[in-house]
Amino acid sequence: MSDGSVKSGLFLVVSAPSGTGKTTVCRKFLKQTPGVRFSVSYTTRSPRRGEVDGRDYHFIPEEDFRCRIAEGEFAEWAENYGNLYGTSAKTMREFLEKGEDLLLDVDTRGARALKKNFPGGIYVFILPPDLDALRARLSRRGSEARETMERRFSRAIEEIREAFGYDYVVCNDRVDEAVDCIRSIYIAERCRTARWTGKIEQLIPE
Amino acid sequence: MSDGSVKSGLFLVVSAPSGTGKTTVCRKFLKQTPGVRFSVSYTTRSPRRGEVDGRDYHFIPEEDFRCRIAEGEFAEWAENYGNLYGTSAKTMREFLEKGEDLLLDVDTRGARALKKNFPGGIYVFILPPDLDALRARLSRRGSEARETMERRFSRAIEEIREAFGYDYVVCNDRVDEAVDCIRSIYIAERCRTARWTGKIEQLIPE
Repeated sequence: MSDGSVKSGLFLVVSAPSGTGKTTVCRKFLKQTPGVRFSVSYTTRSPRRGEVDGRDYHFIPEEDFRCRIAEGEFAEWAENYGNLYGTSAKTMREFLEKGEDLLLDVDTRGARALKKNFPGGIYVFILPPDLDALRARLSRRGSEARETMERRFSRAIEEIREAFGYDYVVCNDRVDEAVDCIRSIYIAERCRTARWTGKIEQLIPE
Repeated sequence: MSDGSVKSGLFLVVSAPSGTGKTTVCRKFLKQTPGVRFSVSYTTRSPRRGEVDGRDYHFIPEEDFRCRIAEGEFAEWAENYGNLYGTSAKTMREFLEKGEDLLLDVDTRGARALKKNFPGGIYVFILPPDLDALRARLSRRGSEARETMERRFSRAIEEIREAFGYDYVVCNDRVDEAVDCIRSIYIAERCRTARWTGKIEQLIPE
């Protein structure tokens, strides 16, 4: 008996300029919210230290990636500093249809493409507390040359402009508070009336 | 310098059929969320045991209430089992303009009137886990005659139909989880992008 309420999983799309601490916030959120699964993107770039294939990314050769583009597998894909990144629409659909909730970690271009190609997402933008903090975090990363750092900083500013297009904004002043905000957004979205129409109807006798 | 972002307080409107445990849920939420103030309604009914004037309600004589109706003071008011209940628009406005967040506990008719007269609210409906639980809670209240209980039960069913018009639904299966849902809705609503435009603009250099 179909009751008309939304039963499919929901998906949170989280973006932030690099240096905002997004990865830490998302990991902590996922750890304390077992009901949400991380949507693993595909990429052609090499794993960084500590990154695990299939957990952080599916690391695939460029030829394989290009094949998947041709087959229309990606809900969004983009080239970023010479590497390709993409989200598989097929995998997303499979999880969501089973009622599983997903967290997607994509940049602002990816988020814009997703919004167009895969409706229904909840868009969350993480802001740095201020520009000094952002610059400091970008410098601390250390693995980049100064020029790369400056380029990332300028790009971060450009990305912050995109925050207006998101549903929610979370300021990463304190990690635990940012995690609590994302968790709250997730729980609130699960309380949306459209997800409860079946239950409401069940309580009303014919 | 006005930055265009929403700075006024937000208000949550919580409704539930009697016997759903709304008062307990709201009290616990308010206790653990010091940033939210309870909007004290006016009523002509007598205080119940344990109710405090100015905290639970402003208990006022019917003549005073009728005066306030005539002066257009109420954002919503209604007669309920022979007693009058109302929410002062003036008081609401004063708090919201100071940036204070409010919780309003009103019945479904009141919520409908509020939505029309005082835009901007976030509407939350609390559902009982099932009808047996609702009936049991209404019986346990004990202070009512059986006939009154049955009338309240029928009215509860009618009120549940109104849940479709709310933004969020919270099922009061376990009190702590229901409180967590209301808290999450509140925090999520504070993360709405419209409330952050000033901060975003601050981060973008001219």
